[in-house]
Amino acid sequence: LQPIHNGGVTTPKGFLAAGIFCGIKKSKKKDLALISSEKIASAAGVFTKNTVKAAPVVLDMGLIKMGLAQNIIINSGNANCSTGALGLKNAQIMAEATGPLTLVASTGVIGVQLPIDVIKTGIKKLKNVLSKSGGRSAAEAILTTDTFKKEIAVKIKINGRDIYIGAMAKGSGMIHPDMATMISVITTDANISPTALKKALSAAVQNSFNMISVDGDMSTNDCVFILANGMSGSKEIKEKSKEFKLFLQALDYICKYLAKEIVKDGEGATKIFEVNVIGAKNDAEAKILARAVTNSNLVRTAIYGSDPNWGRIMAALGSTGIKFDPDLVEVTMDNLKSKVVLIKINLNSGSFNAIAWGCDLTEGYIKINARYHT
Amino acid sequence: LQPIHNGGVTTPKGFLAAGIFCGIKKSKKKDLALISSEKIASAAGVFTKNTVKAAPVVLDMGLIKMGLAQNIIINSGNANCSTGALGLKNAQIMAEATGPLTLVASTGVIGVQLPIDVIKTGIKKLKNVLSKSGGRSAAEAILTTDTFKKEIAVKIKINGRDIYIGAMAKGSGMIHPDMATMISVITTDANISPTALKKALSAAVQNSFNMISVDGDMSTNDCVFILANGMSGSKEIKEKSKEFKLFLQALDYICKYLAKEIVKDGEGATKIFEVNVIGAKNDAEAKILARAVTNSNLVRTAIYGSDPNWGRIMAALGSTGIKFDPDLVEVTMDNLKSKVVLIKINLNSGSFNAIAWGCDLTEGYIKINARYHT
Repeated sequence: LQPIHNGGVTTPKGFLAAGIFCGIKKSKKKDLALISSEKIASAAGVFTKNTVKAAPVVLDMGLIKMGLAQNIIINSGNANCSTGALGLKNAQIMAEATGPLTLVASTGVIGVQLPIDVIKTGIKKLKNVLSKSGGRSAAEAILTTDTFKKEIAVKIKINGRDIYIGAMAKGSGMIHPDMATMISVITTDANISPTALKKALSAAVQNSFNMISVDGDMSTNDCVFILANGMSGSKEIKEKSKEFKLFLQALDYICKYLAKEIVKDGEGATKIFEVNVIGAKNDAEAKILARAVTNSNLVRTAIYGSDPNWGRIMAALGSTGIKFDPDLVEVTMDNLKSKVVLIKINLNSGSFNAIAWGCDLTEGYIKINARYHT
Repeated sequence: LQPIHNGGVTTPKGFLAAGIFCGIKKSKKKDLALISSEKIASAAGVFTKNTVKAAPVVLDMGLIKMGLAQNIIINSGNANCSTGALGLKNAQIMAEATGPLTLVASTGVIGVQLPIDVIKTGIKKLKNVLSKSGGRSAAEAILTTDTFKKEIAVKIKINGRDIYIGAMAKGSGMIHPDMATMISVITTDANISPTALKKALSAAVQNSFNMISVDGDMSTNDCVFILANGMSGSKEIKEKSKEFKLFLQALDYICKYLAKEIVKDGEGATKIFEVNVIGAKNDAEAKILARAVTNSNLVRTAIYGSDPNWGRIMAALGSTGIKFDPDLVEVTMDNLKSKVVLIKINLNSGSFNAIAWGCDLTEGYIKINARYHT
């Protein structure tokens, strides 16, 4: 597994991208991104479990069932959520204006209709400027309150062939994914069926995006897409094969990298912290306990204050309702003054582990969210 | 139902109290309180559901089964939680030093052993200064990061007799009670059996303390006690009687008043907000939905910023996993600039309602909790 310096969604063969300002954001920052595969690709996605789902999520959940896609069009600055029938129609217009087999994503403010005309004009422009070097612009165009873009690519060798996987993500606030995450797009030139691709994506998301929390608020727009266009020319990666395992490892690496980038760029964050729960009775409990700690406002402010407040950690663990013996629990906290704080929790009651990532809670989060007006 | 101006735990007949500084708090503020009934009283309590329970909670959960008590000794500045066998022994020493039939509560920092000798000396002093006017001192001595004391008393007439109920509470942080609350003590001179008293307390707590949230963090030390010494001379209040209903109404009033006082004094809070969910399919769902809104960091910062951000409310409702039709939901927000913001959410899908209370999330919360060092 070899990380690619400056890599992103256009690193794998046959993927083009572009990002422009089309007229949604008042700040005039880029707000429309297109990722396009030269060939029809296997496609998989995971979506927010929030009962309130944005229009593009509703649309994509239908489209993704085909297991095939060629384009992903994403706007920022407007979530197209709680926008009723017109919102759904606008999501469809975005897909149709882009072309056949297009998935749609939106992120930004909830409850406002999309300025669909400027988006349609924007899509025309985007199609003309699609390029092999457009990954970076696309990664910029999906950001909202993010302070930096989040990109990565890796190379793996499967059956003697180079295979690339590239990705981008946006995060920042309303981050507490459940079976999904904020918007992330992953591309690969691997040759893999939609079914195998979906399995790989779901597995990778479980231990990465689903294990981060910025503020405990679950978004209405979370989605992760992966497109695999097979243009590496490699043999098909079959489920349960050695090659599938290699591919999954690479995907896991990518998803964890981006998940941590999202936390690092959490609204107002000055530090991230990794919660390593070990010795749990089962996998599900290990995950719930680790996430409960990342999700505690009191733990998060203690991290901000560099305070080894393990009492707050104990309270957070106990609040889950999971049964454990408090007297057996060992908590260690390392590097409290550094940018990455490590918390290790040994429950001493089993052999299951989980890692979750969170960020500190600071005045910055309050400022961003109290001033963000609808 | 008549509120008593300046009333508190010593308003009902036969209750004495006192509060002093005994040597726990560095600030030298009052840190030890005693409430004492002249006669043995019917007693009931509800306690935190946190798996990690403080030593006094573990002790009280055993003691309360008798249904009788005469004293409650409470220290602030130290939670006596995660303190192992020595912690439990110290809780017992506190009870024994106070006298037979004593309940114990502690609040403050977790994971530090009690300075039991200064407490024992303090208890001796307290017993000497118990008085009819000591309710206020007691209410002060249980505070931690609270900025004001929380007291109330009411008078009701049952069978022609005046019956008084008085109460005090502390709150401030780590407030997200589940079937319990922070520390609250309620006294009454009503004549009521332990069984009926427990029923009344549980019912009142459900719609008051259990419906507030400051920061979503559930405490290890939550408890509410009620003592009923029968000294009003009234006839016994029997379950399911008209008198029981009157008593329950008064208790409900007291608990809601104190619950709102706790939220108002939530760490860093500048405003409280009331979330009124109506039209839900059942009571449990109405409650979960209302609490989810009070518990959302994004809603709380929007309240702070006086922003009518109903998108965040929709996202918080949806994150509960409860099924509802988002298109039917009506959200109204009133008095955004005032100290008490009203949020009304009509799900239009049933006839059940619930009210929950929360406070805004401000820089003040961060400052208090990042600077609070263990």
